[in-house]
Amino acid sequence: MSVRGVFVAFEGVDASGKSTQARRVAARHDALFTFEPGDSVLGVELRRWLLDAAIPMDPETEALLMLSDRSHHARRVIAPALAQGRSVVTDRYYPSSLAYQGYGRGVDLARLRAATELAIDGCLPDLVVLLDVSLEVANERRARDHEDRFESADLAFHERVRAGYLELAAHDVVPWVVVDANLEQTDLDARVDDALAALPWTA
Amino acid sequence: MSVRGVFVAFEGVDASGKSTQARRVAARHDALFTFEPGDSVLGVELRRWLLDAAIPMDPETEALLMLSDRSHHARRVIAPALAQGRSVVTDRYYPSSLAYQGYGRGVDLARLRAATELAIDGCLPDLVVLLDVSLEVANERRARDHEDRFESADLAFHERVRAGYLELAAHDVVPWVVVDANLEQTDLDARVDDALAALPWTA
Repeated sequence: MSVRGVFVAFEGVDASGKSTQARRVAARHDALFTFEPGDSVLGVELRRWLLDAAIPMDPETEALLMLSDRSHHARRVIAPALAQGRSVVTDRYYPSSLAYQGYGRGVDLARLRAATELAIDGCLPDLVVLLDVSLEVANERRARDHEDRFESADLAFHERVRAGYLELAAHDVVPWVVVDANLEQTDLDARVDDALAALPWTA
Repeated sequence: MSVRGVFVAFEGVDASGKSTQARRVAARHDALFTFEPGDSVLGVELRRWLLDAAIPMDPETEALLMLSDRSHHARRVIAPALAQGRSVVTDRYYPSSLAYQGYGRGVDLARLRAATELAIDGCLPDLVVLLDVSLEVANERRARDHEDRFESADLAFHERVRAGYLELAAHDVVPWVVVDANLEQTDLDARVDDALAALPWTA
């Protein structure tokens, strides 16, 4: 019987660098890289809708769709890989719903946590890595990479999301490490590698 | 300010006659007739997936998709109609998830109830009408109407669903009335009308 793989989730606001870090760490440890929303047959369809503004929906409905995707992802992708001894690194997991729909959009956190339990059924990460970036730095990166700065209404929302993430990091049921993602990439790589060095990677 | 409309949900297994009754009652009281899954822009897409066996999914994932549809339906269709003083009659609501995914497929009922609260946000029916039919009678009707009898695995599942409905009728947070749906339609119509006569219909 193989040992369960290591499970790490990367979290943060847009332009925090989490996708880059999640892919890099997965490659370094020969782990499965995965992401939400959308890294499953069901998820592809969900992602298309969730990012399609043509269907206006309430944040609770959006949260439940995200949770449907997460349930499929956790049960059909993450848990089977871990059970086979493969490590998994995901770009976003349940903290994204708590931060974005909960702290950001005001969805009731207790209800959201209860629905999360239905979705993930105990498939918890060993560690959540929060890449914490100031909105100013995130905005500069967005302007540079996408020519697309946050609008002012988005700024207030993203401040709530960022503050929510920091609150979660202090009180969640699994361990979190907060990394200063205002750093340039080489320094950030080193900080992330340090934070992950103690985990029992199988490769 | 208008008085809130009456909200009635019809529940039961396939071939219990609930769709026919829900439509008839809505017409009789000039109420909005609606149904789940699928009676919304989002729901049409969800219904297509949920009934499409091409994406195998776990019952928890199915339940969360149903809840996404229900959230949209409750917030965008049912609650606004009720607030405007219109009565609403729905063919299936939250008890269907508890009966089918909960009692039928073994999804944890406490988690399902908690996620239901996230979905419906207090939009509760004034009365749930359970059309309780024996599996033998349901099977005869299916054979007659669709040339499609339950398979033996389905029979055990539908027995659990039926028993779950009766359990819910006895202990749910809103009042239920159980009507013997083994009756022929004329008799059933009369029983249903009797059960609904005391509600404060506005039309």
